[in-house]
Amino acid sequence: MSSSQKYVIGIDYGTLSGRALLVRVSDGAEIATAVYEYPHAVIEDVLPGTTLKLPPDWALQSPTDYVEVLKNAVPAVLAASNIDPRDVIGIGTDFTACTVLPVTKDGTPICELSGFEGRPHAYPKLWKHHAAQPHADRINALAHARGESWINRYGGKISSEWEFAKALQLLEEDPEIYARMDHWIEAADWIIWQLTGTYTKNICTAGYKAIYQDGAYPSSEFLAALNPAFADFVAEKVEHPIAELGAVAGHLSKEAATWTGLPEGIIVAVGNVDAHVTAVAAQATHSGQMVAIMGTSTCHVMVSDKFSEVPGMCGAVFGGIVPEQWGYEAGQSGVGDIFAWFVKNFVNAEYEAAAKSAGVGMHTFLSDLAAKNPTGSHGLVALDWESGNRSTLVDHQLSGLIVGMTLATKPEEVYQAIVESTAFGARKIVDTFETSGVPVTDFIAAGGLIKNNFVMQIYADILNRPIHIIGSEQGPALGSAIHAAVAAGAYPDIQAASQVMGRLVRNAFQPNQESVAVYEALYRHYLFLYETFGNGDMMHDLRAIRDRKAAL
Amino acid sequence: MSSSQKYVIGIDYGTLSGRALLVRVSDGAEIATAVYEYPHAVIEDVLPGTTLKLPPDWALQSPTDYVEVLKNAVPAVLAASNIDPRDVIGIGTDFTACTVLPVTKDGTPICELSGFEGRPHAYPKLWKHHAAQPHADRINALAHARGESWINRYGGKISSEWEFAKALQLLEEDPEIYARMDHWIEAADWIIWQLTGTYTKNICTAGYKAIYQDGAYPSSEFLAALNPAFADFVAEKVEHPIAELGAVAGHLSKEAATWTGLPEGIIVAVGNVDAHVTAVAAQATHSGQMVAIMGTSTCHVMVSDKFSEVPGMCGAVFGGIVPEQWGYEAGQSGVGDIFAWFVKNFVNAEYEAAAKSAGVGMHTFLSDLAAKNPTGSHGLVALDWESGNRSTLVDHQLSGLIVGMTLATKPEEVYQAIVESTAFGARKIVDTFETSGVPVTDFIAAGGLIKNNFVMQIYADILNRPIHIIGSEQGPALGSAIHAAVAAGAYPDIQAASQVMGRLVRNAFQPNQESVAVYEALYRHYLFLYETFGNGDMMHDLRAIRDRKAAL
Repeated sequence: MSSSQKYVIGIDYGTLSGRALLVRVSDGAEIATAVYEYPHAVIEDVLPGTTLKLPPDWALQSPTDYVEVLKNAVPAVLAASNIDPRDVIGIGTDFTACTVLPVTKDGTPICELSGFEGRPHAYPKLWKHHAAQPHADRINALAHARGESWINRYGGKISSEWEFAKALQLLEEDPEIYARMDHWIEAADWIIWQLTGTYTKNICTAGYKAIYQDGAYPSSEFLAALNPAFADFVAEKVEHPIAELGAVAGHLSKEAATWTGLPEGIIVAVGNVDAHVTAVAAQATHSGQMVAIMGTSTCHVMVSDKFSEVPGMCGAVFGGIVPEQWGYEAGQSGVGDIFAWFVKNFVNAEYEAAAKSAGVGMHTFLSDLAAKNPTGSHGLVALDWESGNRSTLVDHQLSGLIVGMTLATKPEEVYQAIVESTAFGARKIVDTFETSGVPVTDFIAAGGLIKNNFVMQIYADILNRPIHIIGSEQGPALGSAIHAAVAAGAYPDIQAASQVMGRLVRNAFQPNQESVAVYEALYRHYLFLYETFGNGDMMHDLRAIRDRKAAL
Repeated sequence: MSSSQKYVIGIDYGTLSGRALLVRVSDGAEIATAVYEYPHAVIEDVLPGTTLKLPPDWALQSPTDYVEVLKNAVPAVLAASNIDPRDVIGIGTDFTACTVLPVTKDGTPICELSGFEGRPHAYPKLWKHHAAQPHADRINALAHARGESWINRYGGKISSEWEFAKALQLLEEDPEIYARMDHWIEAADWIIWQLTGTYTKNICTAGYKAIYQDGAYPSSEFLAALNPAFADFVAEKVEHPIAELGAVAGHLSKEAATWTGLPEGIIVAVGNVDAHVTAVAAQATHSGQMVAIMGTSTCHVMVSDKFSEVPGMCGAVFGGIVPEQWGYEAGQSGVGDIFAWFVKNFVNAEYEAAAKSAGVGMHTFLSDLAAKNPTGSHGLVALDWESGNRSTLVDHQLSGLIVGMTLATKPEEVYQAIVESTAFGARKIVDTFETSGVPVTDFIAAGGLIKNNFVMQIYADILNRPIHIIGSEQGPALGSAIHAAVAAGAYPDIQAASQVMGRLVRNAFQPNQESVAVYEALYRHYLFLYETFGNGDMMHDLRAIRDRKAAL
């Protein structure tokens, strides 16, 4: 039975599953949610239905899994919500990025064409497919050699994860598939095509992942210099009208209506990226509001009315988060995964038994022990580069460091130093924005780590500013739902919808001034390490020795 | 029943026990051994028979324990050996140092005088009594300010463990005891007094621990500048004829004969120090033969016909190891205790369970895992300063560092990097001797770590020279027995006795040239860290922050 309340559905396509969230338009209330795990998960070992072993660093997905989310999670969330599907007025989506696939003129993935099932390059390359590093290296070297203006919009380095590196790998390793594809399309846009029946290209992935800057992609001359056969890549496989975020991509097709159980013809919003859409869910749509999505890694996104080529950011895209504003992205390649690495490997059996008998997880156990010690009493400083440094150094050959250990140093102290190192890394990013003329007025945390009070308090103390916390556990899906509401015309723009439907707990953590003073001193040491090892040769050389010897 | 074979007894006074070793004079065969644990062990909490709590960093012993070793371990070793005591021709001893006590004119320890039992300063101060650091700091500052020539014989720093620092503490904290004592005597010499009834002062502790250089102690002017009441310290409490190593200290007294069950009147050799006497047991009595006594820490001793003020050594004493040669001592403050610290704290429960089920200790378990990996494949370099740096920096405020970790780094890799760091530390010491004009021709390992093949091979690879291994498990006691044989006239000198009675396995470990090449590269990085952090302010500042905060 139809009611006066209207709803939108946000669908968040993650690395291992898709989540549908049904949200009330009037106030952003999260009514119901449903998750569908991808049957093929991440394809990194053997190609499905074959015995073909993938090389190292490959990561593929199956596009059928994306459609299955529509067929399963959406009906499930409708059923769980107990609302009338006719009250749903729009759908919004977000996706991992850069997750990109080759498709035909009508959007059919090449991997679904007969005869191409056994060809790895026919499949979507997931964001974490890292086998195109040599291609990225060539792109970067050439861009600097030619003085391409766009390279500094990306901290001086294009990632191997992005569209051009992955496409160049495709061209050179399987030219037949390259020739066969009509579009090299982000999964973020492909899923919109499945929902609406038409291809709409979003500005977010175009800007952050496809080097679309100031109305243009890299030139044909540049591409030809990489490989003559690559010269027409943009013209033939990439170019397509660009749609703004929050705009209407199209209307739900009859087929998609059948899959989802939603009314045919409802509004589908332009596609988006999980991190960027989270800003909208956290009411961070105004200049200077930085959102840190903190999980295994951290992604920082921020809207600003100021432009500057901030050193070491991942990207600056005009309209890339909300229209008519600069959208900045920065990142820390390792955060929660560094904590997890330490806990998995370097905590002794006695602690393990004590945590078990106390009935708490090891992160909690170590945090509780560490929290009893005065700040700075461990005498340690660490660099948070166990997974490299994304911002501000853009260098994945860097590695971790810890200094100050004595024979009295305990696991909880090293754990705390590692947590602190990631907070110092965040501060370095914030400081770099500010010294580059792009003020950071608010620091808003989202992602899995916001539940960890120990970590959050350290961030407040080290950043020496309040930490605001997103008020939703489903940030990306809520952000996508907000986009749906805007596209459906329920709000005049993203900012207005975000204020009403987004969720933020302001000042959730306040800096402790006694700790702040200690951390100022430790941060100076962190910066010394940052300069010494970030700009020195040592870590690169250690990595080279390691890789040479490990290959034996 | 008396036989044609003659024997000597070496007695090694360690930190927790005394060991007697009965050795055949003709070939050094170790016939029997017996250990006696000191009933009072190390007194660091409460003074015996009182409720008096000792301050932090204090470490005392009871002199009665030393005599009990004579009364128990010597009869036990005689009984176990089944030889005729009349075939024992001499006794030699070695002691921890600097372990020092205040005694009266007749050698009675002040703590044994009625009325002094409850006074901490009346007791022997064990080598690891570290409460005289402020006094050592004053000595060092004044020595440099006055340009005292002797300070550079000790790497530019007198240790808080040594005689002058401990005596200055005694003077200033309990002047009555200071006034009451007639001699400030090394336990190494006090035990000889107990055996012979006469006070004989050995050159080894006089040189290494009492700043006796070029025939003189620090001047009265120097001492007066420290404290006017200290001006006559040398003249009144220290000065005494100096006896050479391997010389006769005296003859076994009637009383000591009763204690030990040995014939009255047999030869007692001049006292000695555990580390230095080990060189003799390892046949390392010739110029350039460095002996590393590797245990929780490492002590390096070497005889040389060359003299140089090698930077950062612990001491250079003419005749300090064998007569008529320079004796050098250097050290690494943390070695085995760093391995133990890592294993105790930073190895996970899964490894613990696997080691247990394999029935091996954790050191073996980690070593076996690490040994499977090619050298350098961990990509790590560490500084071995968890317990400070004794040589070449002489700085106990330094701390540990490890660099190169990634999310793939495993405990066995960090363990190996820590082992390597101590070997790099050893190489730095060897290189410093050589570049100072004091060649190191042989590297001989002694001490508890020689049983660890993994550690020894890494030392061979990093030093890029063969590692020779002492052939006795009782190096100090064997060395003392050799001194007894020399003093008893069975050999013309220490060198001759050492060649016959000492034990050495030459070339026990040979460098693996493939590893050598990798370690050359890693050693350059170690040296970069050594310079950067050894000469920088960072570790000192981290320590200062730690100590300030930990005191809260």
